[in-house]
Amino acid sequence: MTEPGIWMAAEIAESATVVRAVLDDAPRWAPAAQRAAAGVRGVALTARGSSDHACTYARYLLEQVVGVPVWPTAPSLVTRYDTHLDLDGVLAIAVSQSGRTPEIVAATERYRAAGARTVALTNDPDSDLAGAADVVIPLLAGPERAVPATKTFTATLTALAALGAALDSTGRFGLDAPAVIDAVATAVGSAADAAAVVEVLATAPVIVHLGRGYLLALASEAALKLTETTAVPNLAWSTVDFRHGPMALARHDVSTVIHVARGRVADDAATLADDLHRAGCRVVTVGEPLPGDLAHLGVPAGKLAEHLQPIVHAVRVQQVALGVARARGVDPDHPDGLNKVTATT
Amino acid sequence: MTEPGIWMAAEIAESATVVRAVLDDAPRWAPAAQRAAAGVRGVALTARGSSDHACTYARYLLEQVVGVPVWPTAPSLVTRYDTHLDLDGVLAIAVSQSGRTPEIVAATERYRAAGARTVALTNDPDSDLAGAADVVIPLLAGPERAVPATKTFTATLTALAALGAALDSTGRFGLDAPAVIDAVATAVGSAADAAAVVEVLATAPVIVHLGRGYLLALASEAALKLTETTAVPNLAWSTVDFRHGPMALARHDVSTVIHVARGRVADDAATLADDLHRAGCRVVTVGEPLPGDLAHLGVPAGKLAEHLQPIVHAVRVQQVALGVARARGVDPDHPDGLNKVTATT
Repeated sequence: MTEPGIWMAAEIAESATVVRAVLDDAPRWAPAAQRAAAGVRGVALTARGSSDHACTYARYLLEQVVGVPVWPTAPSLVTRYDTHLDLDGVLAIAVSQSGRTPEIVAATERYRAAGARTVALTNDPDSDLAGAADVVIPLLAGPERAVPATKTFTATLTALAALGAALDSTGRFGLDAPAVIDAVATAVGSAADAAAVVEVLATAPVIVHLGRGYLLALASEAALKLTETTAVPNLAWSTVDFRHGPMALARHDVSTVIHVARGRVADDAATLADDLHRAGCRVVTVGEPLPGDLAHLGVPAGKLAEHLQPIVHAVRVQQVALGVARARGVDPDHPDGLNKVTATT
Repeated sequence: MTEPGIWMAAEIAESATVVRAVLDDAPRWAPAAQRAAAGVRGVALTARGSSDHACTYARYLLEQVVGVPVWPTAPSLVTRYDTHLDLDGVLAIAVSQSGRTPEIVAATERYRAAGARTVALTNDPDSDLAGAADVVIPLLAGPERAVPATKTFTATLTALAALGAALDSTGRFGLDAPAVIDAVATAVGSAADAAAVVEVLATAPVIVHLGRGYLLALASEAALKLTETTAVPNLAWSTVDFRHGPMALARHDVSTVIHVARGRVADDAATLADDLHRAGCRVVTVGEPLPGDLAHLGVPAGKLAEHLQPIVHAVRVQQVALGVARARGVDPDHPDGLNKVTATT
């Protein structure tokens, strides 16, 4: 038997190369994206799975950049309920690694027919999804063989950050490409740092991931990645939604991962950690350390702005998922019951 | 000690009375809601917890009714990230049982200042939230003493269905008030029907809830309600999102609840049930039965249209949550660590 997760490990290791490729390519599509976004009154985001989590990140970034509402769509409203929409002046962004999920393609075609300008982020610029888009942003990640998305997810976050920079007129959402590439390379090169967090999570029967703002996307992705690779139930909430009910789960035998970055919502994470400690939960942190955490995995984001830190955070989440899968003796490259292209309609 | 869940049971039992009160009151606020919605280019929904699940229902209904995008907001973009938005022509609907969650009030005030017309659904028409709204839709549920929302949730779904009917120009989203009230009363009067489903879930270590379309809201609410009342991890996904990764959870020891109604997405539920059986999962159904389910709880929706069935389904979900809590020997009225008003900012 080959080493478990050999593909996943190799694909995470390519992250800095892929991030560099995406950033180098951005000037090629940026003018078309700027034209498509000119004067929009809203931005609609369509995706499933990991790509949908990247869209959660995009929502927090683009709403600040563009100053109009940005929202996740519910594709079944057009694919199943045949809803007739007026999308004049809406920018519809679809994300699909394969570009072949039928409902994402069908929804994008419907949104275009309803008046939206369409943008596709996909790792296959010859895919049906690319064909339905006015602007194609290639993810340039190369083939991804492990079922759990890793480098394609990081590439998607990077492309979305580059899109934000291209559309930004506030001067607040620029992108220091060398600093991002360096930070990702540093994260890739320090995979062993994940060991302490992996050890805590390796025996947890249930894991709860919490984050807010940009890092809601990463908490959600961490839950999905760990579920896919280990088949252990992982739950994710924003720190706020967690307090509106799911907080009932906080008991002495529950393991929680708080995803925290420097920035506008860091105080939330600290307060929540206090409450979780008081309830007797096991708390680990990814990002910034918090008092009392059992283990911590730093995200080497250096001086990167809050909106760029998630790109580096993504690598850490993937390293944790790989480590926990290996510690549990399962092969994360081939999770039972999952395929690389999910043919939902 | 009083009987566990005595308040929750009493509050579920009031459902038909509350539904009738909301429907009787609708003609009073409908004209103001119609004026506020005239010519809107989008509808933004703001809520947390159970109220947010009611908004998931509203999204599926209102997008079909109004024909423009309807989306859930991310309140922290205004409360924390200080995003400046142009919401001219947007209808911003906020839902809060208490009307006192600070971030919901603050976000609604910000949306109004950004040009949105505002509507509040609240059980306290004197609350701060009501004060921030151009149109107030009272939930008329009376005091709710148990921490888990029951009659206020059903009242919210009912008010949203009445709002849909008030805004409908297609003739497809009308509301047969006597039929809805009768169906809710029938559900209340047949609480014992939940026993078989309760028995399967009473010993499950983890429960997965699945639904699509309108019933995504009910799958989410079922997961929250069962988590709140029992402190057992309950997860919820749309049947589609489940296939994009979390399907890895499907194993012989996993209990799943498929929420299914007659309508546009019923085929999805049937296909998913087949796949879950093949993986060895324990499958129970709420709504329509499916071949091979271990237990089934019918939703006595009679001939109600697909968009009205969730109001009756809500009562069933609450009966299951109450039953499972009692079977596990916990008091659902007072979950550890939760308060009736969640003061997130």
